[in-house]
Amino acid sequence: MKHLLGLEDLSAADLTALLDAAEGYLGVGYGAVPKRDDLKGKVIANLFYENSTRTRVSFGLAARRLGADTLDFTPGGSSTSKGETFIDTARNIEAMGIDAVVVRHSSPGAPHVLARHLRPHVRVVNAGDGAHEHPTQGLLDIFTVRKRLGRVAGLTVGLVGDIAHSRVARSNIHGLLKLGAKVIVCGPTTLVPPEVAALGVEIAHNLDDILPTCDVLNLLRIQFERQRSGLFPSIREYRLLFGMDGDRMTRAKPGVLLLAPGPINRGVEITPDVADGPASAILDQVTHGLAVRMAVLSKLCRAA
Amino acid sequence: MKHLLGLEDLSAADLTALLDAAEGYLGVGYGAVPKRDDLKGKVIANLFYENSTRTRVSFGLAARRLGADTLDFTPGGSSTSKGETFIDTARNIEAMGIDAVVVRHSSPGAPHVLARHLRPHVRVVNAGDGAHEHPTQGLLDIFTVRKRLGRVAGLTVGLVGDIAHSRVARSNIHGLLKLGAKVIVCGPTTLVPPEVAALGVEIAHNLDDILPTCDVLNLLRIQFERQRSGLFPSIREYRLLFGMDGDRMTRAKPGVLLLAPGPINRGVEITPDVADGPASAILDQVTHGLAVRMAVLSKLCRAA
Amino acid sequence: MKHLLGLEDLSAADLTALLDAAEGYLGVGYGAVPKRDDLKGKVIANLFYENSTRTRVSFGLAARRLGADTLDFTPGGSSTSKGETFIDTARNIEAMGIDAVVVRHSSPGAPHVLARHLRPHVRVVNAGDGAHEHPTQGLLDIFTVRKRLGRVAGLTVGLVGDIAHSRVARSNIHGLLKLGAKVIVCGPTTLVPPEVAALGVEIAHNLDDILPTCDVLNLLRIQFERQRSGLFPSIREYRLLFGMDGDRMTRAKPGVLLLAPGPINRGVEITPDVADGPASAILDQVTHGLAVRMAVLSKLCRAA
Repeated sequence: MKHLLGLEDLSAADLTALLDAAEGYLGVGYGAVPKRDDLKGKVIANLFYENSTRTRVSFGLAARRLGADTLDFTPGGSSTSKGETFIDTARNIEAMGIDAVVVRHSSPGAPHVLARHLRPHVRVVNAGDGAHEHPTQGLLDIFTVRKRLGRVAGLTVGLVGDIAHSRVARSNIHGLLKLGAKVIVCGPTTLVPPEVAALGVEIAHNLDDILPTCDVLNLLRIQFERQRSGLFPSIREYRLLFGMDGDRMTRAKPGVLLLAPGPINRGVEITPDVADGPASAILDQVTHGLAVRMAVLSKLCRAA
Repeated sequence: MKHLLGLEDLSAADLTALLDAAEGYLGVGYGAVPKRDDLKGKVIANLFYENSTRTRVSFGLAARRLGADTLDFTPGGSSTSKGETFIDTARNIEAMGIDAVVVRHSSPGAPHVLARHLRPHVRVVNAGDGAHEHPTQGLLDIFTVRKRLGRVAGLTVGLVGDIAHSRVARSNIHGLLKLGAKVIVCGPTTLVPPEVAALGVEIAHNLDDILPTCDVLNLLRIQFERQRSGLFPSIREYRLLFGMDGDRMTRAKPGVLLLAPGPINRGVEITPDVADGPASAILDQVTHGLAVRMAVLSKLCRAA
Repeated sequence: MKHLLGLEDLSAADLTALLDAAEGYLGVGYGAVPKRDDLKGKVIANLFYENSTRTRVSFGLAARRLGADTLDFTPGGSSTSKGETFIDTARNIEAMGIDAVVVRHSSPGAPHVLARHLRPHVRVVNAGDGAHEHPTQGLLDIFTVRKRLGRVAGLTVGLVGDIAHSRVARSNIHGLLKLGAKVIVCGPTTLVPPEVAALGVEIAHNLDDILPTCDVLNLLRIQFERQRSGLFPSIREYRLLFGMDGDRMTRAKPGVLLLAPGPINRGVEITPDVADGPASAILDQVTHGLAVRMAVLSKLCRAA
């Protein structure tokens, strides 16, 4: 494995190796992730064309906890506005002597372009490319499932919400299917394109129908900032139809695990009591994200 | 001491212990603060909801000089705009495995909310909460008094300016009174609420009246950006009535010490000749701020 | 050498010593710049009043690769808007215990002001002051010439473009002349002030005239964001008259070396095929910039 561009490219063995490696980066207790020297002397660059404090900070901390130096390049107001192209910006960062670049971009495939254009020793990690993939989010979701439920194969996972625009959904689908889970995508017809069935998932439009069969529900964020008015069910309608609340919890499969990529809209995808309840692994996901990113950076850069 | 939320909560012994510890973080010469390993492997997060380069940089440098890793979380344009609550943001940062969070927020009491909602091992440091407290600024002011004048008890300290909106004033008042100083607050009636007398301070409205008795004058910043037009004496009036200048220096108590939390408005609270003169400890305060913050972070996180 | 304010101040011996030192900070291969301990325990501050991700990041990485801690101070929205003066801001940063400040400012001479006003042990590095100098850019350009062509003395270097507003041109002129190169500045009459001849350079207004004699062409960035409409040849005219393309390459001196301080405007100063061709050292310049900045910071701060 040279780059991490998407979970679609990985084999089940690759995925399992990364998940196993991530275990080693979790501390014995909360907040006790030990500092390591895996990447001492290496330089990891964050190149974020979309704003994302939390993913950027998680990658940056993962790199520094491995002993690497980090560079933050957040174009906008900078070279980009001076007319520089995406590839020229990346090549300039590369020329500073970096070992890996973590890239987020609104264009699907942007990390793949970098992987083709940068020098062979530079590793590329996709931190979200448009509606395409967000592989470390997929990995941390799957890691959390495995950690909480002990396995992935044979489980039924429901991905709920805006499937059409969600790179998180796409990375989850690829990773979960490879590891033997069954995946049901569930959302309003406007947000679940029929073509997604070709990936090997079931499609549902009624959360209540799939509640009794799902071992895991991953409640995707409704990206209000991306919705056009009128196209979408209203917030109130969404909450009624797809929001996870105490009532739906009583009808869910016993032991159901709830995931949600932050930031959550409390009272929309999930009510506060459920978000903070024992079924929710929302904050574990954040902790696991650090471990997963340490595993990815270490694996890619040590192989360099 | 588990958190540092305000000087109001500390005993005289606590305060003295922190001041003594800060001495150990001052180098033998200017700029010679040695690098230490007190917090090696720890992670300190800055969570600043109000813009403050200087305080944020001081805390960040203090943490790194102690060997800690740092995270900078400056909401606005980020998760906050995506609808995430303050506590959810803090919990997400916490879930990355941090040991302490340094928080600045416009709401009085925001750090106390975090201290109640974060897990028990996470320390909270208040870096300014609305008009409530700014305890490390209070500590560095008091440290500077003790360093320059050799003691705190028995001194008379005048806090001059906008007492109503000043968290710096409030932290100074609590700390100074506990350590046995006498405190006079002095400013225009619009900016000195009568209730402040209940804290145990004297109130004055004429700087010239208190000049001969004050061993220390702390010239608070007039926050022009917070003033509504018309309510306040004009800049010119303020300078005439409350500005420290060469003439007032001749009438001040011999050996008077001048403090001012930056950034100063030269020619308003203080004239340039006085700001740069021997009575002024303005730049010492910045140097001492680093030592005080190292002492606070070390004490809190090593006790964790 | 105490500060690096401009190449105008350095002797040929100083320049050669810096270039030689920079060799030692280049790794044996691309991206292999080793981490060093030269500045362990030191603190380097970036004080950037003009936006420049790439120069700021290069200096920051150089400092950290030498083991220093770094501070980023990018005024604007911060203390500056609160009315603080440039010198007060710098003195505040100094009071945090820094060893050097890297400053970029729109006013020519701003770094010299700092060098006069900061305490004697603090080093000042000019990272660009208005249209005056940008000495590390000059050094990295000259380093690249020496690295690629084996020498500087006796070469003819053409600086092409906006000479009037270019601090890069000015630093190159001073450095190149001291090291024995011949310098021709070439651009439209609106952008080449006749006074520049007093520095000891030749002036040309037709790129095609100087093509056959130049060993090096340094294609300065056209700063469209600084041009007023009407004053300047249009982009199309500029490209026709001063853009480097495949046709001009056939008429250039064999072995010509092309430099360009990024970010480049592809298709304006230089066509993509030429920018990415073997004559271009554009990305080498970035790599060399890191080495040159490590050499400068190490030399200044270790002498402290």
